[in-house]
Amino acid sequence: MPESTQLRLARRPRGKVALDDFTLVREPLRPLAEGEALVRNFLLSVDPTNRVWMSDAPQYMPPVKIGEVMRAIGLGVVEASRRPDLAVGQVVRGLVGWQDHWIAGRGAMIAPVPNVPDVPLHHWLGILGSTGGLTAYFGLLEIGRPQPGETVVVTAAAGSVGSLAGQIAKIHGCRVIGVAGGPEKQKRVVEEYGFDACIDYKSEDVGQALDRLCPDGVDVLFENVGGTILDAVLARLRLKARVALCGLISQYAAEGPTPGPSNFSMILMRRARVEGFIVSDFTPRYPEATRALLEWLQQGRLTTRYQILEGGLPVAVDAVNRLLEGRNDGKLLLRVAEDPR
Amino acid sequence: MPESTQLRLARRPRGKVALDDFTLVREPLRPLAEGEALVRNFLLSVDPTNRVWMSDAPQYMPPVKIGEVMRAIGLGVVEASRRPDLAVGQVVRGLVGWQDHWIAGRGAMIAPVPNVPDVPLHHWLGILGSTGGLTAYFGLLEIGRPQPGETVVVTAAAGSVGSLAGQIAKIHGCRVIGVAGGPEKQKRVVEEYGFDACIDYKSEDVGQALDRLCPDGVDVLFENVGGTILDAVLARLRLKARVALCGLISQYAAEGPTPGPSNFSMILMRRARVEGFIVSDFTPRYPEATRALLEWLQQGRLTTRYQILEGGLPVAVDAVNRLLEGRNDGKLLLRVAEDPR
Repeated sequence: MPESTQLRLARRPRGKVALDDFTLVREPLRPLAEGEALVRNFLLSVDPTNRVWMSDAPQYMPPVKIGEVMRAIGLGVVEASRRPDLAVGQVVRGLVGWQDHWIAGRGAMIAPVPNVPDVPLHHWLGILGSTGGLTAYFGLLEIGRPQPGETVVVTAAAGSVGSLAGQIAKIHGCRVIGVAGGPEKQKRVVEEYGFDACIDYKSEDVGQALDRLCPDGVDVLFENVGGTILDAVLARLRLKARVALCGLISQYAAEGPTPGPSNFSMILMRRARVEGFIVSDFTPRYPEATRALLEWLQQGRLTTRYQILEGGLPVAVDAVNRLLEGRNDGKLLLRVAEDPR
Repeated sequence: MPESTQLRLARRPRGKVALDDFTLVREPLRPLAEGEALVRNFLLSVDPTNRVWMSDAPQYMPPVKIGEVMRAIGLGVVEASRRPDLAVGQVVRGLVGWQDHWIAGRGAMIAPVPNVPDVPLHHWLGILGSTGGLTAYFGLLEIGRPQPGETVVVTAAAGSVGSLAGQIAKIHGCRVIGVAGGPEKQKRVVEEYGFDACIDYKSEDVGQALDRLCPDGVDVLFENVGGTILDAVLARLRLKARVALCGLISQYAAEGPTPGPSNFSMILMRRARVEGFIVSDFTPRYPEATRALLEWLQQGRLTTRYQILEGGLPVAVDAVNRLLEGRNDGKLLLRVAEDPR
């Protein structure tokens, strides 16, 4: 058995994540028992939820405990197996953790990745991934429920989920306005992702820009950010608007209470619906969504940038900070080993 | 034709409502044209929405314009008619305004009150009223969607809508916790309205009381108040909780932006749904709801206090302030003339 190199949570980060918040551990792996498989991770997904899991704030899964291997979504390949459901060479995805080798027992939250020719494996963490296309698909269509012709606003529009949510809204016949930070992202959201327009919140007053771009208001907000951008959109909701609350990345590294949106009362005045969701609530419907996403991908109707950081586990901490500060460019991934195929 | 005495909006109130915000006008009424009826108001409903309508903040109906008769829900009786659908003597309810006599044309938002023996007329503004039982019924059942055994929290629980929402939740097999201000209301909510418990927000820490009374969290919040009470409940939402956003009375007289709930992120973390509503969206279903409310009323399963202010239009302004400050006791009504039957 190989050694396992792991990043274990040493203490709860305050604000930005620090290297000292983790301990690098190398430990031998015991022989496999019946029902276990040896998995070698090769690509990790860097997600805003990583920062949430590090904290002990109320959240939708139990926080990572101090001393535990940091939880993370990623891809691995089975290198040895005493599980009849996982053959050697099988690529798996799920909660693989910040580690290289590990033992996946029956309780491990992983599933085999279908072998689709001509689809590079990284797509299974992006356009076809749970924190990518699947979140965009269910959040937009099931929570946001846009109708053709409606106006949809997507925040963090240059990010993985945001870029895909906007493209799916376009496929459904909506007018789509993105919000992103900086002129490069702004340009990409329109030119590469096909949004009708994009607001650069770093150089524009979001409220004024929305007044110009959505003079009749906003039917659906696909929200990844929170804070002042959320407030600006709430002020401009149309009657019976829907807010698909996917993330609040502006708050994840905050210390202490953060002020809520001062336009909260617009939810009442516009009889709007604000609903939080998590993609895993839709697990039984992943096959349906994956078929749709795969078809759009193969038709060239869905695209997103992938930024794959080399450097392995030692750069995981910086990768999370990069995401929190908006210094990523599309879907942020961290390579920990070469692709198996 | 009689004279019409009216209160017209003279300027938008700041904070509490002031007498000077209105002008008392007496004017002769012209003869009825074809399709018009002369209505004499006798009982006005005093509602938090009155304060909203006086402001020009974004809201769910157009604000009352400066110089217009103040909008109000109430009961009137037809005294003369050139409308075939309204006979003399017919009791009507709807938007009758702060006035005694007025001319109701075809566009007037009023409807005949059914003649149900043994049901005093004031019930049509309370247990059977749009800003009473109907709001409680649709908000709780259609927006809150409580399941038997779930824990429901109702704020402004001693008020008309709150007291009825809690009783309807009890009828549906829920555990119901109220929040009200002061020991008398607290006692009444439990003893008269049959809630399982009531928190006095004036003397108790609402968060601590909720921890004690709802140790497993809150499934449904029927929200009338907003502010710190809302925040305390948001922090204790269960997974997939629902917040029926009926009112935010703590904010209606605020000047300038009010801070939003700092626990807004719990909507995401608990995958909760927060939805604003207005009873008039359910107008086509009023007959169904009225039948249910009437049945419960006649079975003695629904009750609420009525506080009927005498003194007519001159006390209307004070009546609204009384409501905003929680100095009302159940359904607040203002008598402007004797009941017609």
